[in-house]
Amino acid sequence: MSSEGGKEDCLGWAARDPSGFLSPYKFTRRAVGSEDVSIKITHCGVCYADVAWTRNVQGHSKYPLVPGLEIVGIVKQVGSSVQRFKVGNHVGVGTYVNSCRECEYCNDRLETQCEKAVLTFDGIDADGTVTKGGYSSHIVVHERYCFRIPENYPMDLAAPLLCAGITVYTPMIRHKEPTCTSISKKEGALSLLGADHFVISSDVEQMKAIAKSLDFIIDTAAGDHPFDPYMSVLKTGGILALVGFPSEVKFSPASLNLNMRTVSGSVTGGTKDTQEMIDLCAAQKIYPKIEVIPIDYANEALERLIKRDIKYRFVIDIENSLK
Amino acid sequence: MSSEGGKEDCLGWAARDPSGFLSPYKFTRRAVGSEDVSIKITHCGVCYADVAWTRNVQGHSKYPLVPGLEIVGIVKQVGSSVQRFKVGNHVGVGTYVNSCRECEYCNDRLETQCEKAVLTFDGIDADGTVTKGGYSSHIVVHERYCFRIPENYPMDLAAPLLCAGITVYTPMIRHKEPTCTSISKKEGALSLLGADHFVISSDVEQMKAIAKSLDFIIDTAAGDHPFDPYMSVLKTGGILALVGFPSEVKFSPASLNLNMRTVSGSVTGGTKDTQEMIDLCAAQKIYPKIEVIPIDYANEALERLIKRDIKYRFVIDIENSLK
Repeated sequence: MSSEGGKEDCLGWAARDPSGFLSPYKFTRRAVGSEDVSIKITHCGVCYADVAWTRNVQGHSKYPLVPGLEIVGIVKQVGSSVQRFKVGNHVGVGTYVNSCRECEYCNDRLETQCEKAVLTFDGIDADGTVTKGGYSSHIVVHERYCFRIPENYPMDLAAPLLCAGITVYTPMIRHKEPTCTSISKKEGALSLLGADHFVISSDVEQMKAIAKSLDFIIDTAAGDHPFDPYMSVLKTGGILALVGFPSEVKFSPASLNLNMRTVSGSVTGGTKDTQEMIDLCAAQKIYPKIEVIPIDYANEALERLIKRDIKYRFVIDIENSLK
Repeated sequence: MSSEGGKEDCLGWAARDPSGFLSPYKFTRRAVGSEDVSIKITHCGVCYADVAWTRNVQGHSKYPLVPGLEIVGIVKQVGSSVQRFKVGNHVGVGTYVNSCRECEYCNDRLETQCEKAVLTFDGIDADGTVTKGGYSSHIVVHERYCFRIPENYPMDLAAPLLCAGITVYTPMIRHKEPTCTSISKKEGALSLLGADHFVISSDVEQMKAIAKSLDFIIDTAAGDHPFDPYMSVLKTGGILALVGFPSEVKFSPASLNLNMRTVSGSVTGGTKDTQEMIDLCAAQKIYPKIEVIPIDYANEALERLIKRDIKYRFVIDIENSLK
């Protein structure tokens, strides 16, 4: 993977300390290697990970930190060995940008489980540099970690697929039946999202009415919440698939054992599933609901995530606002 | 299911209040119905449930309470419609003695999941009476909830199969690899039980040495314990099958999500699996390790369970000590 051409300046927005406040930041992306793709970023989704890492929630954030792991853009340069992409293609990059490419997980294209998987931002790449995410003008990434976005799929809508989309797709390919959690989301769930039913999980009577009725719950809540009420609405043998990161998971063993239930964990997904999910969304015209914002709004967007003052995914219009 | 003959006096040992202290207690068993089997009890295993129920841990114990749900004995009378048993057969009764016999779970012979399943003691049976367990001279039970014990299988050793055995068998039929928890059990695990390895889970270094190495753990601990250390030794996609009832289950979502792990619950098993497990143990000469005690030792045995001062299963020699 030899370098082809020199390093290139990149404009991003970075947090400089655990306040998490973002401001413009210039840095250098690596030169395009023979298997690399260089992408002009057009859009980047805003994920709760952006909040957690800019604010050093896990205690190992390295500043300046450029967040963003739902990246969509246009290929502007490819290395000489790149097979799958050419200049002008619409592409996406998700939560990881490298892995060992030879372990059992990489061989199964389940790179999220590779011991050497490198996160898209704040990760330490194979060359020792710290990765920087999609709140930036361009990114250079090995073609393996780059996904085709069908030309007919709107690029802004594609952004949330790269993290949120694959996160719920991975457990969903085995099951179905989502549930939802607060009244503020009701109207949207029933109309925009086409849900068949809507239950407010904090309403004891509504939850009693659906006791032991669901096969499957995808629990996407990042914040702390009780688990026993959700488990009580699962049938015998039902599964709660946790994809969020509350501060802890706590429940009564009776909620689990007496009805042979399962709590299962998952985190995004491998390159094979991710590409399949994107292609499925394009073929079936499945689109996430988003709210497009300029980069100048990024700090307020993260604050709104913290306050749960958000219905749909924020997507930053990088192309038109990051100058 | 007509009654055939009159009710019969039964001698048991019962707790009279939440002190849990057991003492002799005379009561009446129902008359043998056409589909019933009457069993002269020879042995009864001592399960932690006996501690929990005699001491009213769950708050709904009904006194006098006769514990015991690992019951083995000899058929002394059968109803006119009984097909599977005759006088003199060796039989066992486990954790439940009735169910609706018509729901989806009963149809699958997974009676533990039937909404109307009746526990072997302290349960309210279809006729409104409170069930009484195996710390007693005989029991009358519908033949469906009665298991064949092969004649070559020692009756005292068969007792623990009815609750402890089926509890670990149910998750084990899908997987393998047990782990163990304290140094006091090491010698026995390696010699008597034929374990390949022994790891003390409270030893951080030993646990680190087996990080991400196990496919499966059956967690049988009834007492409180941390879950994250056990989950850390599971491989990607590994399963922790919980069969005990600690006061709560608590772990970090990272222990679950990052490695796509699963925490799964289970409780004893249905009549089909129970009979298969007993037959397998007989065919493969698999025997639990037990310590046979007289009924007079029952109170001390329960106290020793509370103090975790026990290596193997206590089995009460009902036949020779309950007079």
